[in-house]
Amino acid sequence: MKLVSFLKGGKVKSGVIVDNEYVADLNESCYAMLLEKGEDEQFIERYCNALLPSDMLGVLQAGDKAIELIKEIINWISKRHELLLKLDNVKLKAPLQRANMLRDFLAFRGHVEATYRRRGQQIPEEWFKIPIYYKGDPAIFYGHLEEVPWPKYSKQVDIELEIAAIIYKKGKDINKDKAKDYILGFTIFNDFSARDIQMMEMRCLLGPAKGKDFANGLGPWIVTRDELPDIRGLRAYAKVNDEIWCDTKAEDMQWTFEDMIQYVSQDEYIRPGDVFGSGTISGCTGIDIGKSLKPNSRIELYVEKIGTLVNFLKNF
Amino acid sequence: MKLVSFLKGGKVKSGVIVDNEYVADLNESCYAMLLEKGEDEQFIERYCNALLPSDMLGVLQAGDKAIELIKEIINWISKRHELLLKLDNVKLKAPLQRANMLRDFLAFRGHVEATYRRRGQQIPEEWFKIPIYYKGDPAIFYGHLEEVPWPKYSKQVDIELEIAAIIYKKGKDINKDKAKDYILGFTIFNDFSARDIQMMEMRCLLGPAKGKDFANGLGPWIVTRDELPDIRGLRAYAKVNDEIWCDTKAEDMQWTFEDMIQYVSQDEYIRPGDVFGSGTISGCTGIDIGKSLKPNSRIELYVEKIGTLVNFLKNF
Repeated sequence: MKLVSFLKGGKVKSGVIVDNEYVADLNESCYAMLLEKGEDEQFIERYCNALLPSDMLGVLQAGDKAIELIKEIINWISKRHELLLKLDNVKLKAPLQRANMLRDFLAFRGHVEATYRRRGQQIPEEWFKIPIYYKGDPAIFYGHLEEVPWPKYSKQVDIELEIAAIIYKKGKDINKDKAKDYILGFTIFNDFSARDIQMMEMRCLLGPAKGKDFANGLGPWIVTRDELPDIRGLRAYAKVNDEIWCDTKAEDMQWTFEDMIQYVSQDEYIRPGDVFGSGTISGCTGIDIGKSLKPNSRIELYVEKIGTLVNFLKNF
Repeated sequence: MKLVSFLKGGKVKSGVIVDNEYVADLNESCYAMLLEKGEDEQFIERYCNALLPSDMLGVLQAGDKAIELIKEIINWISKRHELLLKLDNVKLKAPLQRANMLRDFLAFRGHVEATYRRRGQQIPEEWFKIPIYYKGDPAIFYGHLEEVPWPKYSKQVDIELEIAAIIYKKGKDINKDKAKDYILGFTIFNDFSARDIQMMEMRCLLGPAKGKDFANGLGPWIVTRDELPDIRGLRAYAKVNDEIWCDTKAEDMQWTFEDMIQYVSQDEYIRPGDVFGSGTISGCTGIDIGKSLKPNSRIELYVEKIGTLVNFLKNF
């Protein structure tokens, strides 16, 4: 299934794609279905708000209980098109408006090689020993076709095409053999970066902060693992205005999402709504290929079997 | 006022200290007070859950509405001691079990000087230009008298005595002249660090991750700004078992909390429940003074006008 967030009456709602071209509002569909089944209205209200709230983070927190109920809704509602919205008429938001935590890794070897080649250095041996990541602002996501403001404090904004794994179970000390069970599915992640401020920050050893935390692209939807069991080998491209910046495959991952989950979950819970970014797919960022962004650009990121995430980087 | 979280019937509850030696359960006190005033029970339930839920993060999200209601409760309940719990009999938890975000800065100059002196380097010029920080796991807090497990993956655990500012309003692009309005109050923060893994991670430029994210000490309570308008110049000490590690004053801050708020809030919302760590008070960490921790240690952190935060670092 494909899980979306979308705008309705000024509020962000959680939804699911039905028959490829429709969107079902999860909370309202839950209400309608249980009402038809003759349940008590006040109970329905509480139950649907608990399992399928408008906020996608809340849906993920309900874990498999939510997913089972969504499957039931899809079956029930596909014969009731009058309750559905046309996908084309809906304004999508990032599937998670608010993640629980955002961890962004550095898993693709070609990107790491390009970074250190620019510095005239070898890849540090530590990168081969542990999956490296920083943590981002988990509530600054822009969805498909949304405008991203150029940060006032930067002259050098860049994109990074990544794939994100979305966690929907709580766990600690997870072995990588079991790690897949914690992943609900995948989406496209654009790790927007302000290179000038990022470089200043990184020279002081604590990693990037404002160099990353003005925007993250996420979307267009979460494709669950029943449709997309794994992301390795998928074709991916980035296109800025009319120019292809990269057209490649997601192949040279030194660290899998399972490795990352095993590493992070040592003595620490991962939780529903955690977002794990893969790191830049090799070659899919301006800084690696000698290109830079201008204000008022259209940025199109594509990953096979997920879809296309378009954002418009505006001037401030 | 002093805001606490505490354990009651296996659940973490939000509370406030009354008459120095009692704790009022915020949600239950709200219910009792409004019931006595003759309000409708179902409305009281919804209203108290909205403004004063058991989760302190939820209380902070209600902002000044929550704070006004807590003041009313303190007045009402201080004549009704039968509704209060003795502080001595209560098991405290970290005042926030779950923050919205945890940003930890590097504001004290003496600590930064010691760090670079060890490396045989000067402080980077960037540190004087922008307030540097990393982001931590916002849901791994240990409160006063709680045991902290030694992380399985580290041989070298350290403490860092810091002061944390707690945010309780949402805002963006905040000028530092207005920044104080966003701070509810202050507490003590122990930025537990696994130095061996932290150093490995930092060599790969994205900052610390598992080197920090196994534990944060926070507490014993949030002292609001009406009692403690500013933290500069406060006496602070760290004591490990029977040994004083530092006894100093919080004086050499290169960056104030107001500076940090101005910097972070550029093109990015700060939100209720955000925790801003000051960075290590100069001299108040093992690595700066050539000391190291052993398993099964008692760690006592003191900050004047806030109080004492004790944790027990266990073996794994």
